[in-house]
Amino acid sequence: MEKDKEIFQRKDDHIKISINENINSRNTTWLEYVRFVHNSLPEINLKDIDISMKFLGKKINAPIIIGSLTGGTKLGLEINRKLAEAAEKYQIPLMVGSQRIQLEHIETSKSFSIVRKYAPNIPIIANLGISQLVQMKNFNSVEKIIHSIEADAIAIHLNPLQEIIQPEGDTDFSNAIEKISQLNDSLQIPLIIKETGAGLSKNVSRKLIDVDIKYLDVSGLGGTSFAAVEYVRAKKQDNHLKSVNEGTFLDWGIPTAASIIETKAVAKNSTIVIGSGGIRNGLEIAKSIAIGADISAIAQPFLRNAYKNSKNVESYIETLISELKISMFLTGSKKIEDLKNSEYVILPPLSTWLEKRL
Amino acid sequence: MEKDKEIFQRKDDHIKISINENINSRNTTWLEYVRFVHNSLPEINLKDIDISMKFLGKKINAPIIIGSLTGGTKLGLEINRKLAEAAEKYQIPLMVGSQRIQLEHIETSKSFSIVRKYAPNIPIIANLGISQLVQMKNFNSVEKIIHSIEADAIAIHLNPLQEIIQPEGDTDFSNAIEKISQLNDSLQIPLIIKETGAGLSKNVSRKLIDVDIKYLDVSGLGGTSFAAVEYVRAKKQDNHLKSVNEGTFLDWGIPTAASIIETKAVAKNSTIVIGSGGIRNGLEIAKSIAIGADISAIAQPFLRNAYKNSKNVESYIETLISELKISMFLTGSKKIEDLKNSEYVILPPLSTWLEKRL
Amino acid sequence: MEKDKEIFQRKDDHIKISINENINSRNTTWLEYVRFVHNSLPEINLKDIDISMKFLGKKINAPIIIGSLTGGTKLGLEINRKLAEAAEKYQIPLMVGSQRIQLEHIETSKSFSIVRKYAPNIPIIANLGISQLVQMKNFNSVEKIIHSIEADAIAIHLNPLQEIIQPEGDTDFSNAIEKISQLNDSLQIPLIIKETGAGLSKNVSRKLIDVDIKYLDVSGLGGTSFAAVEYVRAKKQDNHLKSVNEGTFLDWGIPTAASIIETKAVAKNSTIVIGSGGIRNGLEIAKSIAIGADISAIAQPFLRNAYKNSKNVESYIETLISELKISMFLTGSKKIEDLKNSEYVILPPLSTWLEKRL
Amino acid sequence: MEKDKEIFQRKDDHIKISINENINSRNTTWLEYVRFVHNSLPEINLKDIDISMKFLGKKINAPIIIGSLTGGTKLGLEINRKLAEAAEKYQIPLMVGSQRIQLEHIETSKSFSIVRKYAPNIPIIANLGISQLVQMKNFNSVEKIIHSIEADAIAIHLNPLQEIIQPEGDTDFSNAIEKISQLNDSLQIPLIIKETGAGLSKNVSRKLIDVDIKYLDVSGLGGTSFAAVEYVRAKKQDNHLKSVNEGTFLDWGIPTAASIIETKAVAKNSTIVIGSGGIRNGLEIAKSIAIGADISAIAQPFLRNAYKNSKNVESYIETLISELKISMFLTGSKKIEDLKNSEYVILPPLSTWLEKRL
Repeated sequence: MEKDKEIFQRKDDHIKISINENINSRNTTWLEYVRFVHNSLPEINLKDIDISMKFLGKKINAPIIIGSLTGGTKLGLEINRKLAEAAEKYQIPLMVGSQRIQLEHIETSKSFSIVRKYAPNIPIIANLGISQLVQMKNFNSVEKIIHSIEADAIAIHLNPLQEIIQPEGDTDFSNAIEKISQLNDSLQIPLIIKETGAGLSKNVSRKLIDVDIKYLDVSGLGGTSFAAVEYVRAKKQDNHLKSVNEGTFLDWGIPTAASIIETKAVAKNSTIVIGSGGIRNGLEIAKSIAIGADISAIAQPFLRNAYKNSKNVESYIETLISELKISMFLTGSKKIEDLKNSEYVILPPLSTWLEKRL
Repeated sequence: MEKDKEIFQRKDDHIKISINENINSRNTTWLEYVRFVHNSLPEINLKDIDISMKFLGKKINAPIIIGSLTGGTKLGLEINRKLAEAAEKYQIPLMVGSQRIQLEHIETSKSFSIVRKYAPNIPIIANLGISQLVQMKNFNSVEKIIHSIEADAIAIHLNPLQEIIQPEGDTDFSNAIEKISQLNDSLQIPLIIKETGAGLSKNVSRKLIDVDIKYLDVSGLGGTSFAAVEYVRAKKQDNHLKSVNEGTFLDWGIPTAASIIETKAVAKNSTIVIGSGGIRNGLEIAKSIAIGADISAIAQPFLRNAYKNSKNVESYIETLISELKISMFLTGSKKIEDLKNSEYVILPPLSTWLEKRL
Repeated sequence: MEKDKEIFQRKDDHIKISINENINSRNTTWLEYVRFVHNSLPEINLKDIDISMKFLGKKINAPIIIGSLTGGTKLGLEINRKLAEAAEKYQIPLMVGSQRIQLEHIETSKSFSIVRKYAPNIPIIANLGISQLVQMKNFNSVEKIIHSIEADAIAIHLNPLQEIIQPEGDTDFSNAIEKISQLNDSLQIPLIIKETGAGLSKNVSRKLIDVDIKYLDVSGLGGTSFAAVEYVRAKKQDNHLKSVNEGTFLDWGIPTAASIIETKAVAKNSTIVIGSGGIRNGLEIAKSIAIGADISAIAQPFLRNAYKNSKNVESYIETLISELKISMFLTGSKKIEDLKNSEYVILPPLSTWLEKRL
Repeated sequence: MEKDKEIFQRKDDHIKISINENINSRNTTWLEYVRFVHNSLPEINLKDIDISMKFLGKKINAPIIIGSLTGGTKLGLEINRKLAEAAEKYQIPLMVGSQRIQLEHIETSKSFSIVRKYAPNIPIIANLGISQLVQMKNFNSVEKIIHSIEADAIAIHLNPLQEIIQPEGDTDFSNAIEKISQLNDSLQIPLIIKETGAGLSKNVSRKLIDVDIKYLDVSGLGGTSFAAVEYVRAKKQDNHLKSVNEGTFLDWGIPTAASIIETKAVAKNSTIVIGSGGIRNGLEIAKSIAIGADISAIAQPFLRNAYKNSKNVESYIETLISELKISMFLTGSKKIEDLKNSEYVILPPLSTWLEKRL
């Protein structure tokens, strides 16, 4: 029972800490070292710019996935509802927060299923941690959480940094890749493997592609630091993390720009790369697509905006779309794919990293 | 009528914002990464340094074009008069601000034609935006605005960033290059194509050279940010730009030094490269000429000085000339062209950019 | 007698200055330019991570040597006792502070021998300066200080920077390498040659390896600056150092990361490289091992913690172990040696240094 | 008469501004990008380090030339006396300030000749500007100023930056190299050509070597900025420099480290390179010698110290010598020439500059 209360408490702690405290990585996404070359003669009409695309079998209006990050509590339910309404209104995909709580507390299902109620037509992505997966004997529970939101795909998030830093973390990753492969084989819907702020490397991406994973969400370094979140939480709880120096792992991970390029370098034609991790505006979406992503995902700013009110969520989406279109206009890109042929320059230290890695 | 008032208001807004607010790009011109190698034994006499040249068929006393940036209002007229007087006194060229307002409001002609009245002998450059051009069926109105100031050349400015950021902007650039080519063929005077603070790239310059444009004004990143101007204006008007994050595009563009070198790299022998964008002193004029420009243009500081009084304009011109001559003296350059053979070193990140682009 | 008091005073001065003043080098270790590539799928269980190893013929629980830095006074004795207790509890090696004082003041032996009393089972390393060694006719006194703590090895520290900066320093290094070779031949236990914060270069390491030294402790730049310690002390004593500008040598030395890689580059298979100099957390231990060290040594933070109380020493060791394990987990390293095959990227200026040196 | 008073006033202005105002270049010497590789086993005895050398036919005790910078006024005389006493005491060379005033005001001779009175045995260097030289019909007056101090050599300083920036400056350098060559042929003592804070380039040095100049004093960028001195002075005098923006030329010149390496790259075996410009401590003297200088010169700190009192001058010399010896000890250099074979690493941006220039 104590543990039960604890998990709900942790859920709401995460939201509030995300909103009220500085939990940004000290390291940036390195997207600032990707510089578009301005095109003074775009030879297109803004009106003709088309950012719609197909994703998970559905047409979506923009290459932006809303990451909810939450669920399970009353506060989570409310946030999920607001995000679902906005996702439906703008016809863009939504990924719910970790549904682990749903496995243990069936009564929390509503806080997740509400997204399908308010967003009947968009791609919705279920979400579970690798730690839950590796403990499963069969995947019945996975089917259940998929079913509960009529998910179009499910993401399994890899969060070794978070697991090992938080006092309650699960730290057995020994058969993770095997379980991923088994789940992939058993699923009727696509499986997305995603990181959680420390970035997929080319070698991890290659391993995943080798077991037929088609959707890779890089979630690189540069945005929310879960190390920072856990530190703040630990401090408020009389220092559970005493065996880790504050700050030691605040820079841990592969910057988002490097992670996208590493993953794209080993991707097959059929691989869908999701660019995420600290992306905050439409220009960064454009850059992530230019260097290799097919679509972007953004989480923390949506959480922050939804916590305030629905209007903020809508206006944030409009800003992202507007900025993405401006970036496309100024690089002469009519369609999303055109961004991949746009001119850009990669400056150090990102270029140095790539020289040594690719 | 509302729209009419609005356009006059915008004109004066631009001037006042330019003068009272911080509207500089966060990015520099990168001219600081061009370093002249000092020559301790110049073997010349300062008195023998000759910075005069031919420009648009007339002899001018210095390779400096005054950009007025304004016109159309009473305030604009006054500023234009002061700038014309100074241009005539020092025999240097003048480019008027956008004459779009003249197309729609014939009564504003005087605020532009005053420059020819006060500057009968210097090259004067008419100025119109690409957005006006693309909407034209014929070029009669262009002929009119040229005639109104007896222009020696006309500049068409490419301002996709400004157009797409300002709420009232025109964002159809689909047949821009074709229209430019047509105008070029029909004109009796030279056509200058200029950017407006985001820089010409080598590919845009090549396209323009391919349709026989001989005058390219790079107007690179590093000076006035029109994104910044529009943000400030929008804020004062109850936030029209709500769909763009403040700051997202403050660094957008090709730094002036990179833009000059890119353009020069694709220039023909007959191409005249105008180096501009954030140039503020005579040393920067010398640097821009050393790396490829034939002449420099400066706008914002002239606006600021003219707003104060004519004395400031004159003393600013004298400073520019003096600093340019000092730079020539200290590099042993007797004539403008000698600067092109002067010794200089290009340091990162400019050298990195060039390695990847040329 | 005056000189006697002085040496005891100096010992305690060093401790107090170390604890109360800013005596860090202005230069970092450059370990921040070594970046591990995050492994999202470590495929190991945290529980299976084994950081134990053999060192000086004994099994130790972690690749961490406690450097005591002190001894000889009552305060030194107390600190040594606390460190020995912790070393024994966690079964990690301990190196005592310089035993020079023991050569001249036999009554101070207890302040050193106490470490063996409280730490009967761990490797203990005796410690003497090169300046004492070069003055010896025979090595009887070395045998004595070894015997007094039943040392498993003895370290001779090279501290030319400290000797030349402190007013009382010995500055004849003319036959140092010969004496080292002689001592090495005469000893029954291994001889460790260590720097003291300025780093071993590849050429110095090669010379030492050429005379059959098997243990090299790099002690690079980036941690405590003995130049800084001496300045602070001199200031308090009416400025003995008037003939050295404060700050001139604050950056002197080879950054720890560069020193480890240089030393490893010339090491034989049988060489044991000890990575030290400004290492402060478990991630830095992991990095130093990844780039070439076999084990790490940390001194100043142990001094600081022991000065406070034993609890701090223990919790600091736990933090180091925990952070090292996290670093191993997140790079998929099960054993210490696996760190050497982990993925990492070396960025400038460290990569620049290495290009020019190796 | 007005002009006469002015020249004396300027002399004292220069001293006081040098001492009371911030007149440092914004640019450093770039000597911080030259990093010695620490030698932990120097295998020498500090006592055996010998920094004496032959210079201008006399034995001197250290490779340090005192630059006086002044003369002509009562204040200048006093400073010169103090510097001469110290130079004699430590047996190091002295270069007097510009003797131009002596040409026009014979009564000022004493303020210069005093140096020989107080320093009978050391090399003393006379000093005149290139602007005086180019106006001479014959070199009788040069012989006189040489004679007045029984100079062992005379330096002609090249100061185009200073001449062109100061309102009273001479700016005809057209036959400078020819005059230098003529003077060189006519002199009985060696001719030193020196810059004044903007650095000799490899091409200027080559030209000078081609006319048989054997002594080159680079005087690079990084120390006193004469541009800054003139600005401060102009400001106090109701702004004579109105035609130069404050700051435009504050970074002008070749950083000292680059200038030494450029000059050494074109030097003959017989060329003596004097490393100067912003050198402030003995480590920087060691670095300048390691990268190519034969001896160093320091001016501004001597002026500042002499203005205070003689004790400061002496203790500053002792500090320089001590720091130089420490640098030699820690690089295992017994003699000055050994520094040239010491290990060092050159980091960007200095290494970038050299890649592009040599």
